[in-house]
Amino acid sequence: MAVNLSTPNPADLRPVPGVRLGVAEAGIRKANRRDLTLIELAPGSRVAGVFTRNRFCAAPVQVCREHLAVGDIRALVINTGIANAGTGEPGLAAARGTCAATARLLGIAADQVLPFSTGVILEPLPVERLVAGLPRAQADLRADGWFAAAHAIMTTDTLAKAVSRTVEVDGRTVTITGMSKGAGMIKPNMATMLGFVACDAVVSQDLLGALVREAADLSFNSITVDGDTSTNDSFILIATGQAGNAEITAAAGAAWAALREAVIDVAVRLAQAIVRDGEGATKFMSIAVEGGTDRDECRKVGYAVAHSPLVKTAFFASDPNLGRILAAIGYAGIDDLDVSRLRVWLGNPDESVLVAEHGGRAASYVEEAGARIMAHSELTVRIDLARGSAAATVWTCDFSYDYVKINADYRS
Amino acid sequence: MAVNLSTPNPADLRPVPGVRLGVAEAGIRKANRRDLTLIELAPGSRVAGVFTRNRFCAAPVQVCREHLAVGDIRALVINTGIANAGTGEPGLAAARGTCAATARLLGIAADQVLPFSTGVILEPLPVERLVAGLPRAQADLRADGWFAAAHAIMTTDTLAKAVSRTVEVDGRTVTITGMSKGAGMIKPNMATMLGFVACDAVVSQDLLGALVREAADLSFNSITVDGDTSTNDSFILIATGQAGNAEITAAAGAAWAALREAVIDVAVRLAQAIVRDGEGATKFMSIAVEGGTDRDECRKVGYAVAHSPLVKTAFFASDPNLGRILAAIGYAGIDDLDVSRLRVWLGNPDESVLVAEHGGRAASYVEEAGARIMAHSELTVRIDLARGSAAATVWTCDFSYDYVKINADYRS
Repeated sequence: MAVNLSTPNPADLRPVPGVRLGVAEAGIRKANRRDLTLIELAPGSRVAGVFTRNRFCAAPVQVCREHLAVGDIRALVINTGIANAGTGEPGLAAARGTCAATARLLGIAADQVLPFSTGVILEPLPVERLVAGLPRAQADLRADGWFAAAHAIMTTDTLAKAVSRTVEVDGRTVTITGMSKGAGMIKPNMATMLGFVACDAVVSQDLLGALVREAADLSFNSITVDGDTSTNDSFILIATGQAGNAEITAAAGAAWAALREAVIDVAVRLAQAIVRDGEGATKFMSIAVEGGTDRDECRKVGYAVAHSPLVKTAFFASDPNLGRILAAIGYAGIDDLDVSRLRVWLGNPDESVLVAEHGGRAASYVEEAGARIMAHSELTVRIDLARGSAAATVWTCDFSYDYVKINADYRS
Repeated sequence: MAVNLSTPNPADLRPVPGVRLGVAEAGIRKANRRDLTLIELAPGSRVAGVFTRNRFCAAPVQVCREHLAVGDIRALVINTGIANAGTGEPGLAAARGTCAATARLLGIAADQVLPFSTGVILEPLPVERLVAGLPRAQADLRADGWFAAAHAIMTTDTLAKAVSRTVEVDGRTVTITGMSKGAGMIKPNMATMLGFVACDAVVSQDLLGALVREAADLSFNSITVDGDTSTNDSFILIATGQAGNAEITAAAGAAWAALREAVIDVAVRLAQAIVRDGEGATKFMSIAVEGGTDRDECRKVGYAVAHSPLVKTAFFASDPNLGRILAAIGYAGIDDLDVSRLRVWLGNPDESVLVAEHGGRAASYVEEAGARIMAHSELTVRIDLARGSAAATVWTCDFSYDYVKINADYRS
């Protein structure tokens, strides 16, 4: 039961000039399931990525890092069903074999291919079935393939996640389209979060690299369902350079500002979609922390609240449980936090109420107001640390019976 | 449903010479409930403590820190029902008032009293009812009051937690008795963990301070139910000095070794009792990490596994889910961890099986062995990081439907 999320309208997903996508049934783990996606990029495209910091990172993540270091990427291959993680040397060979086969098919070099896998971990990737499916994915390549691809990369997602928008850059219309998958690190062996955003802007490789890191920081790295970081998390930003704008080479000026804002917006919406589809989620929660001395301490507080099982179960119960929120702020790890100065508000899209100040419950707060706010499915906990001017927001979902049910019943 | 834990036998709880305990019904929050405990210490007793690092620490914790800095503690007062946390200046006044009233009653100074509160947070402590109950607690003072006190300090605990043992120190028999309360930080407004251990050894104040920190580190600071750190956590170690041994003044020699071992043993058993009584717990899990470069990184790995909702729900389901364990190890924060070298075993008191090595599932592992081990209620995850010689163990419980039910249904 996703929270305020619906399947994207195919007509809303705009093709990005220079990008074609094709899908196929390769029988990776299950029959009659589109589980293979090929993305072809026009010559001259630039690609940047960020990846999981889990030390048990999957084989394809290792290969992606190697190939991005070389550059001149021309294709991406994504399979679901098997994550190719915890697979040792044979897993690396399978990821490299995937790239080699794709390269032969497209007439490019193996290190111009980025491989991605998501699904069960600790199981071998059936690379021969994947390779056998590649020609069918190639035959399916088309500019309007985003809707089909967003479905083909799903694992336990209940809905496909894709977003598109345009933005004026240097007098040209730039198109940005992206897709993501993941039900938020909660599906143990279904390894996790993938995000792909493509635009046709002309932007230098350095700036693209900076933008993918900033966008990831503000989107996929600002969400949590249960604090578990997967082995396969990957976020890729593509710029095909076909929009014809003057190349953006400095992080300044109107063109950069417009592109930056639009890419971050798309990434945030894709990341939020993962939280909205978090298994068992009934509430979408924004933990907005302001007044910190730096962004890092705001994130610490945001994550402490967002990860607290006590806060998450209280939100599931629509219980405005201030004690749990205050306790989580208190143990977030800011040693010199002055709790007598901080203020906390609970809000939904209709109203926001001061609930805590002076180290305890706000004198003006009444339980009825808290209960009224919590009845909504979109909730905000706003926290002013009153120490500085930095801010950060973390998005999460609540913690329900269904979370335990799904994760306890699940057998690999 | 506590895991392999039962009510202590009153006859097993040995009086500690120099310590008397009394309980009373003070009506702090509920009627007909022993909710007030007074502990009187003989002159010359030494006391040391460690407290929550939560910035929202409760008023009594602040007062305890002040009074311990002065020293010469002669009494402890513990109330349940109201935690006196998140109560601002009035809360501090209530804690100080408790000490002043106790001091008048016993003919000592107010700063010779340590106050402790546990229960609902954000509510004012009814200090006048507490003070009115003190004479009845005083009238009840007796050396064999541990069993009654262990019950009177309970909040949502399903069982009282108390442990006693003796040890030879310098040819004298030293008695160590302790009690604890807490269902493991999982009861939001029922603020949390208290531990009191008393012995009659003669030991210097400096060593007592070192021992309370070491014992806390190896016991109460090595457990987790859900990662939520409370506002009131306190652990107190008392040495009345009545055993007649030569004063222990150096962290060396047989007398120190014997006392140290026995105090840590009592603290560990009291801490484990809290996990065994963790709400919704059906399994008691030891995460034993070895081969680390230092104890800190072993604890990081232990806590990453122990806090993972995915691991905890898998254990609830008796599912030997290796992927979840390996992923948690991978994101524990050891940047240069070589996953190809680490090894993981699953075990119960009867057997232990190698389940992972070389970056993936162990070749010798079969699912049947995992399932057989997981059928037990006492489980060990042993992890060899193969980087050094440090080790640390973290204890936790599994994560069940009942956890969500208890915490979602709970209303302050």
